[in-house]
Amino acid sequence: MLDNDLEDLRARLQQGSAQDVRLAMRDGSWTGTTHGLARGYAQANLAIVPRDAALDFMRFCQRNPKPCPLLDVTDTGDPEFRLVAPGSDVRRDLSGYCVYRDGILVDEPDDISDLWSADLVAFAMGCSLSFDAVLQDNGLRVAHLDKPGGRIAVYTSGIDCVPAGPFAGPMVVSLRPIPRGELDRVVEVTKRYPSIHGGPVHIGDPAAIGVTDVSATDWGKPPEIGPDDVPVFWGCGVTPQAVAMAARLPLMITHKTGHMLLTDLLVKELDQ
Amino acid sequence: MLDNDLEDLRARLQQGSAQDVRLAMRDGSWTGTTHGLARGYAQANLAIVPRDAALDFMRFCQRNPKPCPLLDVTDTGDPEFRLVAPGSDVRRDLSGYCVYRDGILVDEPDDISDLWSADLVAFAMGCSLSFDAVLQDNGLRVAHLDKPGGRIAVYTSGIDCVPAGPFAGPMVVSLRPIPRGELDRVVEVTKRYPSIHGGPVHIGDPAAIGVTDVSATDWGKPPEIGPDDVPVFWGCGVTPQAVAMAARLPLMITHKTGHMLLTDLLVKELDQ
Repeated sequence: MLDNDLEDLRARLQQGSAQDVRLAMRDGSWTGTTHGLARGYAQANLAIVPRDAALDFMRFCQRNPKPCPLLDVTDTGDPEFRLVAPGSDVRRDLSGYCVYRDGILVDEPDDISDLWSADLVAFAMGCSLSFDAVLQDNGLRVAHLDKPGGRIAVYTSGIDCVPAGPFAGPMVVSLRPIPRGELDRVVEVTKRYPSIHGGPVHIGDPAAIGVTDVSATDWGKPPEIGPDDVPVFWGCGVTPQAVAMAARLPLMITHKTGHMLLTDLLVKELDQ
Repeated sequence: MLDNDLEDLRARLQQGSAQDVRLAMRDGSWTGTTHGLARGYAQANLAIVPRDAALDFMRFCQRNPKPCPLLDVTDTGDPEFRLVAPGSDVRRDLSGYCVYRDGILVDEPDDISDLWSADLVAFAMGCSLSFDAVLQDNGLRVAHLDKPGGRIAVYTSGIDCVPAGPFAGPMVVSLRPIPRGELDRVVEVTKRYPSIHGGPVHIGDPAAIGVTDVSATDWGKPPEIGPDDVPVFWGCGVTPQAVAMAARLPLMITHKTGHMLLTDLLVKELDQ
């Protein structure tokens, strides 16, 4: 496709519905990331695991709702997220997947139809892209979005997740520098959205949760923390992937970074 | 035990912790209901199902969070609710259980140690006893508690739950008549407590959700709806039991009505 055509499609998908985006990815016309697409719709992290591991993975999400806010779980072998994306086909409706075998990344296809089987269960979990939209809609600054290409700072913390079966490990957290005067409001707003990570897991000294050097991010870019900013940490959707990789399942499939599942949930309706 | 001793014990357990109550039930000294015990602590509905049904039952709870707000799920074969009641023993820490085989009530023991096996999974779900406490703590009237022995009106509604595997059926709902002037505040307060049923599932005309005669309750007592009251319906914790019974599992164990699981969660900390 020509660059102009691609930009036209991007513009259309930004204003389109979640279903429009899923269909464009299903038919292969959109292969890019989902950043900014289907504005107002919640995007989700994806994890697909074999049936044998599904109950423990679901327990893990239930026990660790801040990093792993569960939005929907498919029936075993059913590729449709009937609750949050009716009509979806999880085998083709994302523009990029990661395939792990025994915890090792072995492929990054844009279609997993040939890997799908009656033995698999797919999980959709709330994602911080939607979270940032909530902050912006409430007139709050999201520092890492101030710059083009800005990416949030993400760390493996010293907070242990509550384990479940083979799933155990540290919580991955994101850091947002929040102006001191906005802190109460940010906490109040984000607490109302438990399905996209909810309230902070830690406010203040990074070292207290094992982040001894904020410039040494594990994912994303180091934050710029101003003199009047407070470091505030939230549970991050990388956690379930990191934990599932560490569990060395025979097969696990996730979304590729930035290539999220588009759900029919409206972010503004996730307010609780 | 003499009546006076029982009343002394009741008074002590009302002021006691959730653990105090669990231990009094475990050693057999308290055999009554849990109404009013361990004030401030969240009480929970209990359902125990075989491993084969556990993933579908957990999906059912995830898909129907208003009637089935999941608080904790044990590891398979583990009788301890490690998240919400550390040190608990679900085989002995309730004062009454119902045992169902193929969907039929076959026994109401006060100890299920002999029925427990490595194949079972226990689920704790939020309970409306805690819910009423929240309303009262916020200065809101709870009509059915105005009278001694008052019991909330509960109906099988015409709202279908989202099914999961063998689990399907209508949502059971509770009705609270709310003075029109308090309606907004009741909705606002209860929405903040998703783990104990959250906001209403319906406000207004009972017939709109299939309740054609409010005097014909399926459980509890008919409500007194004043001229300035609005009928407000919430998801009810009877739902998962009704659905699980209808699924005719080979074995299912629940709490006996009024004999709830005491959790270490403080109701005031369930605010989200």
